[in-house]
Amino acid sequence: MAKETLHIIKIGGAVIENPEMKQAFLNGFVALKGRKILIHGGGRIATEIGNKLGLVANMVEGRRVTDDATIDLVTMVYGGLVNKQLVAQLQSLGENAIGLTGADANLITSSKRPIKNDVDYGWVGDPQLVNDTFAKSLIEEGSIPVIAPLTHDGQGHILNTNADTMAGTMASAMAPHYEVNLILTFELDGVMKDVNDSKSLITNFEQSFFNEMKASGAIHSGMIPKLENAFKALESGVGSVRICKYDQIHTQNGSFLQV
Amino acid sequence: MAKETLHIIKIGGAVIENPEMKQAFLNGFVALKGRKILIHGGGRIATEIGNKLGLVANMVEGRRVTDDATIDLVTMVYGGLVNKQLVAQLQSLGENAIGLTGADANLITSSKRPIKNDVDYGWVGDPQLVNDTFAKSLIEEGSIPVIAPLTHDGQGHILNTNADTMAGTMASAMAPHYEVNLILTFELDGVMKDVNDSKSLITNFEQSFFNEMKASGAIHSGMIPKLENAFKALESGVGSVRICKYDQIHTQNGSFLQV
Repeated sequence: MAKETLHIIKIGGAVIENPEMKQAFLNGFVALKGRKILIHGGGRIATEIGNKLGLVANMVEGRRVTDDATIDLVTMVYGGLVNKQLVAQLQSLGENAIGLTGADANLITSSKRPIKNDVDYGWVGDPQLVNDTFAKSLIEEGSIPVIAPLTHDGQGHILNTNADTMAGTMASAMAPHYEVNLILTFELDGVMKDVNDSKSLITNFEQSFFNEMKASGAIHSGMIPKLENAFKALESGVGSVRICKYDQIHTQNGSFLQV
Repeated sequence: MAKETLHIIKIGGAVIENPEMKQAFLNGFVALKGRKILIHGGGRIATEIGNKLGLVANMVEGRRVTDDATIDLVTMVYGGLVNKQLVAQLQSLGENAIGLTGADANLITSSKRPIKNDVDYGWVGDPQLVNDTFAKSLIEEGSIPVIAPLTHDGQGHILNTNADTMAGTMASAMAPHYEVNLILTFELDGVMKDVNDSKSLITNFEQSFFNEMKASGAIHSGMIPKLENAFKALESGVGSVRICKYDQIHTQNGSFLQV
């Protein structure tokens, strides 16, 4: 029997922060029919609220160094403010959203990243285990999990986890149960040969070409882990991976990854 | 067939704020066997973080006036920080906690409180409807809902809701399905005739006596809605209501309410 389709969609902080972009995203999300999981970021809002609290964001290679005060900040902002506002908005649009972190119902357990090359990321977690049974039970009863980029270590600590990594992890974990359609959204139309030329969209983005672009330095640092993650998901049995603009999730526009 | 017991426990902000009290509470929570729901406050932590953000708490009769900045604050603090830390700690103790607000899975819909006697409480909600089917399905699969004092209006807005009210509302809504044991905890041993005399605990607290105490002014303002709520729950079919110290939930100590 053919597996049912599950859409796993990731949105970043820039879209969440901007009410017009957020609304355009939500319209597309509602228009996309079928079973869905939403995974969100929120880094820009965390940085903004952190500044008001006197915390200065400390980023190493696009990843936030997460000390004690910062894990409390992102737990508040990702798990509370951003997550619950998205849930309330989706509920008002008739979508039965349920907001979760990796700690809730033991959804995603991760291990605290070890210190490497003298860089201590602090309370940052790399996902280890997904409670796919629980996620599946929610999806099957028609709920839409809305997942914040937070996990837990099983020892009582919340860990900060990259939202793209969360999306890739959930996609791989759900692939045995569904034909997973992973969609990573951002502000551009997709992967561009030249970011200044809107006609340079790469609709079929081959892994070999990614390796070339990476080697030549044509892809900037933040995009590399995003794409590596996405190719990894595709290799692990995820049906399709597309990178597209935040308001195009219900279309077939953007860049489809190809292994 | 006799209904199964469901314990619904409420803890306030003072216990959450104090690591020793929180640990003592959690030990009792784990020792209390059977099906459980935890409902928490967090007002003191919200006030503290609000102060750092330059927000001054504005309380009218023990209830927080909730303007735009304040609803964002309590959404972060109750729905994020307090809720997810409790969930992670319970998970580490082997309890399958899942953190929720009233918006999640449409758990509790409320209506925004109308302006009355020139007091506008802002984004404050009075509960209207509970998704008891969803709560029951979580409980039946062995999960422990951990509920933050936030609801939603179904129009996309999060509303601030008193934690005692949340506890009473959940208790009444679950009473048709379970023999509900509602436990409201705080820092004292229970309801005292004289707060300065530890021997003055009222183990069986009759509604008629409550009415006398209220009329004579012996009960202070914050306790009145807490107790009114609790008696209302008892009248609506909740099996038992007890008010006790935060570390006594697994015992039979404290004040049992009697109608």
